Amino acid sequence: MSQPVAKVSLTGIKPTGDPHLGNLVGAIRPALQLAEEYDSLYFIADYHALTTVRDPELLRHYSRSVAATWMAAGLDPKRTTFYVQSDVPEIFELTWALSCITGKGLMNRAHAYKAARDRNLEAGEDPDAGVNMGLFNYPILMAVDILIMESDVVPVGRDQVQHVEYAADIAGSFNHLYGRSYEFKIPQAIIPPGETGHTLPGLDGRKMSKSYDNTIPLFLQENQLKKLVRRIPTDSTPVEAPKDPDSSAPFLILESFAPPSASGLVADTRKRLEEGGMGWGELKNVLFEVLNTELAPLRERYDELMRPGSELDSFLADGAERARARASRVLSSVRKAIGIAR
Amino acid sequence: MSQPVAKVSLTGIKPTGDPHLGNLVGAIRPALQLAEEYDSLYFIADYHALTTVRDPELLRHYSRSVAATWMAAGLDPKRTTFYVQSDVPEIFELTWALSCITGKGLMNRAHAYKAARDRNLEAGEDPDAGVNMGLFNYPILMAVDILIMESDVVPVGRDQVQHVEYAADIAGSFNHLYGRSYEFKIPQAIIPPGETGHTLPGLDGRKMSKSYDNTIPLFLQENQLKKLVRRIPTDSTPVEAPKDPDSSAPFLILESFAPPSASGLVADTRKRLEEGGMGWGELKNVLFEVLNTELAPLRERYDELMRPGSELDSFLADGAERARARASRVLSSVRKAIGIAR
Repeated sequence: MSQPVAKVSLTGIKPTGDPHLGNLVGAIRPALQLAEEYDSLYFIADYHALTTVRDPELLRHYSRSVAATWMAAGLDPKRTTFYVQSDVPEIFELTWALSCITGKGLMNRAHAYKAARDRNLEAGEDPDAGVNMGLFNYPILMAVDILIMESDVVPVGRDQVQHVEYAADIAGSFNHLYGRSYEFKIPQAIIPPGETGHTLPGLDGRKMSKSYDNTIPLFLQENQLKKLVRRIPTDSTPVEAPKDPDSSAPFLILESFAPPSASGLVADTRKRLEEGGMGWGELKNVLFEVLNTELAPLRERYDELMRPGSELDSFLADGAERARARASRVLSSVRKAIGIAR
Repeated sequence: MSQPVAKVSLTGIKPTGDPHLGNLVGAIRPALQLAEEYDSLYFIADYHALTTVRDPELLRHYSRSVAATWMAAGLDPKRTTFYVQSDVPEIFELTWALSCITGKGLMNRAHAYKAARDRNLEAGEDPDAGVNMGLFNYPILMAVDILIMESDVVPVGRDQVQHVEYAADIAGSFNHLYGRSYEFKIPQAIIPPGETGHTLPGLDGRKMSKSYDNTIPLFLQENQLKKLVRRIPTDSTPVEAPKDPDSSAPFLILESFAPPSASGLVADTRKRLEEGGMGWGELKNVLFEVLNTELAPLRERYDELMRPGSELDSFLADGAERARARASRVLSSVRKAIGIAR
């Protein structure tokens, strides 16, 4: 009896900053849970990041750092295919080929481009001021990322659903024109569990986000993490007074982040805050201990992987080889279909 | 003593139709003359043609046919580098990289796009109706064709000068941002002699052009060529009457196309027409003989090269190898400069 073929799931990771706790909880862990159900591919979208990151050292660092983060968080490069986009040159040739069958009107309506355009118009600027062609072409590259791996599903945030719809549109156009000799698989977006409510609060109680500058970086050294937690702003309610845990940033972070094994501790902390008798300082110590217990092994693994010449390089080289095997098969069929191959 | 390094000249050839006599005289021969002075590269721009050619068999045929034509016309694949664009995948990766530093405003102002836009507006259509992203991105791909080969000069028709200027612009933007680690050579357009006046008249006396449907295809079999020449429209002036050679399409073609060795024959024919005594039939016979004498050896060589498995394939494979050696050197420097290489 043959095994049922698992569906292919693709996750792109844009290396535009150092990862924080909110990324771990809201994006990385939910995405890694999917690896169980699918034939999962994960890639570092370094050529996407180039549309905004102009500092070569930073781009190089982010690409490596984000790869090390996902592996430290549990990505298994043997059970999944884990690669860097720029290691798969077939992607860029297919991007050109598919751009020839993609209407410019579709790009005009893309969310990211329209947002940039609207900002310019509001500011009284030329609508395309500061818009580079990487940003404008972005949806085509993303479609190719998806289609060249014959992805069935793409777990994305709500703001990224349009990109998967565009990939499906472009695949449809190709299949209409050239479907006699090759047909792209039509991909579907899925919203992973982390997107359906479970977001981590930041140091100020709002959603943890780089743009609010309220994040807890994932790989602070222990003493730096302790300092950062101590500095979370709190009011001057005295130790013995009752407190509202649900308006306290340290408690909200604790509650969102604590693993199931710490649920007793969380319930107890909530009770002590509500009844009075627990000060902010003690709450912060509890939060620090929970964070540090969870993050210490990740930090250790991350530091190992970040060393030059670590096994990260061989894992990514192996992933690139497997990704290229898929990509070159698809590209070669497309070349035949469009009349490029001799 | 070291040899002075020859400047690099690049010529792109878009395979969108079967070549005609006007192409030979107005484009192919002038371009081949440049091979003497430069380190010359010629390439078949098959991925450019994809923006308009949707029929895979036709695209495949045109690509091969145009390559065979240039070789039959004298292109020496040993003295020059002759390759097919799609055999150099480095071009497409660099196209993405440079699109990230190319402003969309530059593309909005490109001649070919603006012409399409104007046609749509005049017809009361959406300005981007029928415009695909291959057409819109065309100037970036063309810039990469030029820059990745470190071209010094690009012989182009007047209508193509903007593309070379764009390549220089894009190179300038890159050098400004990343010039500490790699600098592109800034290319220059040159207008080859064929563009400065020497155009061939067509069957109706207007410039020979596919769009006027007045061409003499280059590789007609002898009897078909004879038939085509016989069918050139002429009036009913009797044989013995004086005729104006300068308003006669067959004479104008003869005069433009005849090699220097036939200049006596051309002068004699002019005289006999002006004096009377030469009919259109005889003129057409003279034209056919001159055409056939010149074209027969080209046709024979073309037919040889068009056979499956001919030496055309090994010449192009060799050209691709040399072109990729240049391209991968440049791409690798660019990757380091922008922060992609590990």
